[in-house]
Amino acid sequence: MGGDESPHSFVCASVSFLKLHSLAHITLFGDKATLESSLSTLDINAVASRLNVVHAGQIVTPEEKPGVALRSKQRSSMWLALSAVASGEMQAVLSAGNTGALMAMARHLLGTLEGIERPAICKRMPVSGAPCFVLDLGANVKVGAKQLREFALMGAALAEVEGVAPVKVGLLNVGEELQKGTEVLQETDKLLRDDPRYQYLGFVEGNAIFEGVANVVVCDGFAGNVALKASEGLARYLIQDLRRYFAASWWRKFLGALLGLMAIGWFKRLDPAGYNGALLVGLKGVVVKSHGGADGKGFQAALRVANDQAQRRPDQLLASWLSQSA
Amino acid sequence: MGGDESPHSFVCASVSFLKLHSLAHITLFGDKATLESSLSTLDINAVASRLNVVHAGQIVTPEEKPGVALRSKQRSSMWLALSAVASGEMQAVLSAGNTGALMAMARHLLGTLEGIERPAICKRMPVSGAPCFVLDLGANVKVGAKQLREFALMGAALAEVEGVAPVKVGLLNVGEELQKGTEVLQETDKLLRDDPRYQYLGFVEGNAIFEGVANVVVCDGFAGNVALKASEGLARYLIQDLRRYFAASWWRKFLGALLGLMAIGWFKRLDPAGYNGALLVGLKGVVVKSHGGADGKGFQAALRVANDQAQRRPDQLLASWLSQSA
Repeated sequence: MGGDESPHSFVCASVSFLKLHSLAHITLFGDKATLESSLSTLDINAVASRLNVVHAGQIVTPEEKPGVALRSKQRSSMWLALSAVASGEMQAVLSAGNTGALMAMARHLLGTLEGIERPAICKRMPVSGAPCFVLDLGANVKVGAKQLREFALMGAALAEVEGVAPVKVGLLNVGEELQKGTEVLQETDKLLRDDPRYQYLGFVEGNAIFEGVANVVVCDGFAGNVALKASEGLARYLIQDLRRYFAASWWRKFLGALLGLMAIGWFKRLDPAGYNGALLVGLKGVVVKSHGGADGKGFQAALRVANDQAQRRPDQLLASWLSQSA
Repeated sequence: MGGDESPHSFVCASVSFLKLHSLAHITLFGDKATLESSLSTLDINAVASRLNVVHAGQIVTPEEKPGVALRSKQRSSMWLALSAVASGEMQAVLSAGNTGALMAMARHLLGTLEGIERPAICKRMPVSGAPCFVLDLGANVKVGAKQLREFALMGAALAEVEGVAPVKVGLLNVGEELQKGTEVLQETDKLLRDDPRYQYLGFVEGNAIFEGVANVVVCDGFAGNVALKASEGLARYLIQDLRRYFAASWWRKFLGALLGLMAIGWFKRLDPAGYNGALLVGLKGVVVKSHGGADGKGFQAALRVANDQAQRRPDQLLASWLSQSA
């Protein structure tokens, strides 16, 4: 029930997703009447056996403080969906709602992995070739070296379950020289060395996220959020700018249409909606957060992320790594 | 003499620049033999009266510590060029060399404006329409609220001399809600309110840089550097990706050539080289820093920035603002 758009576009996206992924099951948590009236407008015969609706009488609002939601919204769609993952009934949860509330409820219901101080938010950036996981993206604004080291392990597990070998980890800084940055980064730099589970690249700069050099870029939630929002802003601006450009004359419209047909893959990669779906990592279970402003296309991208993660289970690999080092 | 490429491409760029800007004068500081042999390969008749060469016997290396350069490189091209601005002989200096050394020498030779704790590095981002100045971009990794307020004024002066009215200033944070971010940001948020010289937007996120909402985005040097490098990295990745795409078949090559001819303005804006030239602000004088890896095209863009700033003199406006508030 979260997100800026009505649940209808998310319901449509879920049905489309089931049609494309014949092994997936989806349970929609929310206001039953709303969800069923939305489903009644769609052709769901082919997927009805893999689609359930569970009624949730409460909604977590976007403004709600995490602590308040945790105490007072135990009949919300968010709470019920997370409970279904906690009980093992389902393998992943996807929400477009209040991020802080989702994190608080996930920590409470699923629990944080042994050896992880606090979960982080992570996104797989849309570069061609090898993936690049950036974390934290905003859950932890101020962090210490020990936490940054945990982020490195979380990211490495995400890359490893995708088959990346060796996983290359970089530490985000304002320069690659050894003496750069804050004391926390200097300390983290030492902690990250000599871990057999990944190859440590040392300090990297913001451009590393898109250059296919690092598979994991580790940073505090402030820097990560800034990097993500700035590059999403640039991508959105470029798309708008191109659209304006190609709308300016009939000849450009023609060329734009040709280009649109041909370079559609490129545009998809450029469009932030195409890589919607951030991971809450460090938890005992798979939790995916869709952007609140996502449309149906964006929500489908996030569903793909949830489906992939449910099969790859980076949380289980991470748990086994953490138990080894303990 | 700074930068990764040989001085030749910078010499060529300077000559081309003079041909396009008939009121500009350029003095090249560096190894006289190298510069003159480079000039001898070019047709400089039309601009010779506006082009000088001054010999500098030392070079500041990229690895040199700022303090060391300051003490031991007083016959370097960097030192001599800054001295010429300090004496009023010239109106702006452009360097592609060691940023730390340039900042240290500029502070020493030109001086910091009365009321400014430390200068900042600032860049005009390549958005269409109203400009967006982002600062600091890496000179000050850790800053307090008072410094961030100084950055806001520096940025506002840069926008004001471009004719932006009213200048809209945003404070970079991980969310727009009032309670977000660190204590320093909370404190700065209060300091920035109710200044008649700009319109304060409150907290903005990284995407504000490219959305034409804010004319000034204020942040510490760490966040600014990350935002800049991440978006430059994305832009460079997208250009490469497009090039690869259009090289893949004869039909795409044809379309790509058409597109290249038509959308050249768009590509120019996308290309980080097109907006090369960062400003060192808060100093008594105009100092522009070219990216060390800039090619001739990038260096020409930085020359344009230096030329514009020499005529607009944001440092003089800022000085008058600071004297009023003192």
